[in-house]
Amino acid sequence: MSKYSAIKEACYKANMDLNDLGLVIYTFGNVSAVDRSLGVFAIKPSGVPYEKLKPEDMVILDFDNNIIEGALRPSSDTKTHAYLYKNWSEIGGIAHTHATYSVSWAQSLQDIPIFGTTHADHLTEDIPCAPPMADHLIEGNYEHNTGIQIIECFKERNIDYQEVPMVLIGSHGPFTWGKTADKAVYNARVLEELAKMAFLTRQINPDAPRMKAALIKKHYERKHGKEAYYGQN
Amino acid sequence: MSKYSAIKEACYKANMDLNDLGLVIYTFGNVSAVDRSLGVFAIKPSGVPYEKLKPEDMVILDFDNNIIEGALRPSSDTKTHAYLYKNWSEIGGIAHTHATYSVSWAQSLQDIPIFGTTHADHLTEDIPCAPPMADHLIEGNYEHNTGIQIIECFKERNIDYQEVPMVLIGSHGPFTWGKTADKAVYNARVLEELAKMAFLTRQINPDAPRMKAALIKKHYERKHGKEAYYGQN
Amino acid sequence: MSKYSAIKEACYKANMDLNDLGLVIYTFGNVSAVDRSLGVFAIKPSGVPYEKLKPEDMVILDFDNNIIEGALRPSSDTKTHAYLYKNWSEIGGIAHTHATYSVSWAQSLQDIPIFGTTHADHLTEDIPCAPPMADHLIEGNYEHNTGIQIIECFKERNIDYQEVPMVLIGSHGPFTWGKTADKAVYNARVLEELAKMAFLTRQINPDAPRMKAALIKKHYERKHGKEAYYGQN
Amino acid sequence: MSKYSAIKEACYKANMDLNDLGLVIYTFGNVSAVDRSLGVFAIKPSGVPYEKLKPEDMVILDFDNNIIEGALRPSSDTKTHAYLYKNWSEIGGIAHTHATYSVSWAQSLQDIPIFGTTHADHLTEDIPCAPPMADHLIEGNYEHNTGIQIIECFKERNIDYQEVPMVLIGSHGPFTWGKTADKAVYNARVLEELAKMAFLTRQINPDAPRMKAALIKKHYERKHGKEAYYGQN
Repeated sequence: MSKYSAIKEACYKANMDLNDLGLVIYTFGNVSAVDRSLGVFAIKPSGVPYEKLKPEDMVILDFDNNIIEGALRPSSDTKTHAYLYKNWSEIGGIAHTHATYSVSWAQSLQDIPIFGTTHADHLTEDIPCAPPMADHLIEGNYEHNTGIQIIECFKERNIDYQEVPMVLIGSHGPFTWGKTADKAVYNARVLEELAKMAFLTRQINPDAPRMKAALIKKHYERKHGKEAYYGQN
Repeated sequence: MSKYSAIKEACYKANMDLNDLGLVIYTFGNVSAVDRSLGVFAIKPSGVPYEKLKPEDMVILDFDNNIIEGALRPSSDTKTHAYLYKNWSEIGGIAHTHATYSVSWAQSLQDIPIFGTTHADHLTEDIPCAPPMADHLIEGNYEHNTGIQIIECFKERNIDYQEVPMVLIGSHGPFTWGKTADKAVYNARVLEELAKMAFLTRQINPDAPRMKAALIKKHYERKHGKEAYYGQN
Repeated sequence: MSKYSAIKEACYKANMDLNDLGLVIYTFGNVSAVDRSLGVFAIKPSGVPYEKLKPEDMVILDFDNNIIEGALRPSSDTKTHAYLYKNWSEIGGIAHTHATYSVSWAQSLQDIPIFGTTHADHLTEDIPCAPPMADHLIEGNYEHNTGIQIIECFKERNIDYQEVPMVLIGSHGPFTWGKTADKAVYNARVLEELAKMAFLTRQINPDAPRMKAALIKKHYERKHGKEAYYGQN
Repeated sequence: MSKYSAIKEACYKANMDLNDLGLVIYTFGNVSAVDRSLGVFAIKPSGVPYEKLKPEDMVILDFDNNIIEGALRPSSDTKTHAYLYKNWSEIGGIAHTHATYSVSWAQSLQDIPIFGTTHADHLTEDIPCAPPMADHLIEGNYEHNTGIQIIECFKERNIDYQEVPMVLIGSHGPFTWGKTADKAVYNARVLEELAKMAFLTRQINPDAPRMKAALIKKHYERKHGKEAYYGQN
């Protein structure tokens, strides 16, 4: 049994959830899971239909994109995952989807405004939409540069990636992350719901205001603050 | 067997329905069921996934939020339920969801207009959207104050909670209630449908008028009036 | 075995299809099936959940609303069905739904424009939306008057009910009909699809034109004309 | 066993997928599969419900619309398929659907703009909407002329049918194609997703720009270019 079995299994399961949750069709999307102690991550192979995936198909790479184990070609977005793992030490899993409402906001080149408590239960900011890259970065090491694009966006806006576990890439779609691959998929599903609610809110009332700061704080802290009282822990 | 078995079972079933009806994802939402003779209610534990819920997990509390029975922490919205039970003696169950269209109207800070007979079959008024609370109320005993917010909204507008079994909390989402927990969930499902229809109606015709008073009266009374002729009772 | 078994079974099956097709929730909606030789029709009982319906629950009435057989109270919309059967001799089944997009057009008080071949494959006109009745008609024999309202609408606009097997009642919802109860349900499902497509068409292009007369004619006639070549008959 | 068994089976399976993917209701839509070596194609019979279809029901025709084998009448759109097979030698399958969002764009008489990478992963152009035909062409050999309409549209705009495997027919709906019938259905499903995303993008931001040329090129080429690195081949 491979010493990478645990992350292969976690990665496989999270990819299958992506499909079961309706966040992708066909071979779209990909999820990875990291093992920090071994300095590697497992990721979905490129272009394999979800119904044919097996745990042992997951590809193992280090953070410099060297394949450590695996017979298949890794996801075409692998370098973006590697760059994020290398630079953001506290994330354990990353998900990329083509979910309908999330992609539509990304294509509209707009942040998703924080309109209500469903949003504030998970993060306290608008969901950032990173602008498309300059042409020479697209023509260069594109997927690596997508990682840079995400991290630059968070730096420029002074956003903490542990508090805002999701981003939209303009003209493309969402990346989400979390402590585990499961949590990254959870955040992808939540993002899709927030994207749909924000779309509808704006359609009903084009002048709908962002929610009050006090309410954002209250809802975020009852779930994530020091004195959180949501859940069983 | 606990003397609370009946409401635990009713509460469990109603929570599971909330999930089966697609009104919530993950651990969002909660339903409670009251036993007026014992002065207690059963409510969903906080943050437990629906697929892991068991009837015996339901938490029993009195109307002053004292836990009477149960090993788990109750829903974070428990105090809102307690306050409504304490003040509105005729309700037997309460549901809170994050259903997509209902939340979107709440986020738009607008009442849902009464556009047609699907609405009038259930209630004769626009569905009220209570404005967000003042900051000091949010920062204080928030969930208790949400109960106050709902009841104040009904008082100010002179609405009877037995005739209008639902409300939107601005920037948050819906609460619904009824004679039983089942009926509260029924009202949550109906509200979601009315919210979607009203959204579409406005999109098709921004000047769509409220329905005629005579038609509201007719439809409400054929289902709820003294000479009702809908159903088998 | 009742001599009404055939229409009870047809009526039961058609009502269950209404539910299976997602055109109704809970106890909303109703379908009836006529036996012209016996001068009676079978209709769904009022307010009975679809999952509890049985063929023998269907109520048999004549065209003057006298109950001929059946232990349950018939649908509250029965008089509308009776009036249509009495006046339109060529229809064999009627369906009434609260399907989301159909109701939303009814609530918007607008006809559904004929935008494309999906529409013209079934009918050559905009789908008429009958305006809400005068108050004294609502307060009077309401469901009977709804039947009058439908037939008046068709007379005034000079529409043939055999060519246009569907109508929207303003502020209410759709009625559809056909040679059989099955065909009435088919038309209800098609109407819902046309209603959704027309909604989206207008959202994409508020100035979208009605389709060309030549194309309407072509598509309708290849399915319904003397030289129809659609299907196997 | 018929020498046409392979294309009958492929055609049957692709038609069933059309239904399973939710791209059609009732008997709407049709898929065909070609055998270039035999100079024939298999197509769905007209007006047969998907749940009653069997592989042996598929009708075999040559490119001049002569029935070679089959007891049933072929799809009413057969002549369009035949004309495309005759003129575009590299296609192996064709699909026609009445999928909701695709039809709605066709009814709006607008091209679907290329807004993001989900689109560019499949084609580098806006999805063309061919204008409705002149009346005398509709009144003439309509389905044959629809084939001409498609090919003229591609010629006039200088679009390569191998790079843009889909078209909208104004006031009607989509046709898609590919190397196989399966691939034609895949393109029909992708088109429906692109149509929904483009609709939402425009609703969120009416001024949403087409994506950058460099990004279109990058995404298309990583999947379809000489140095493609998507997938396992």
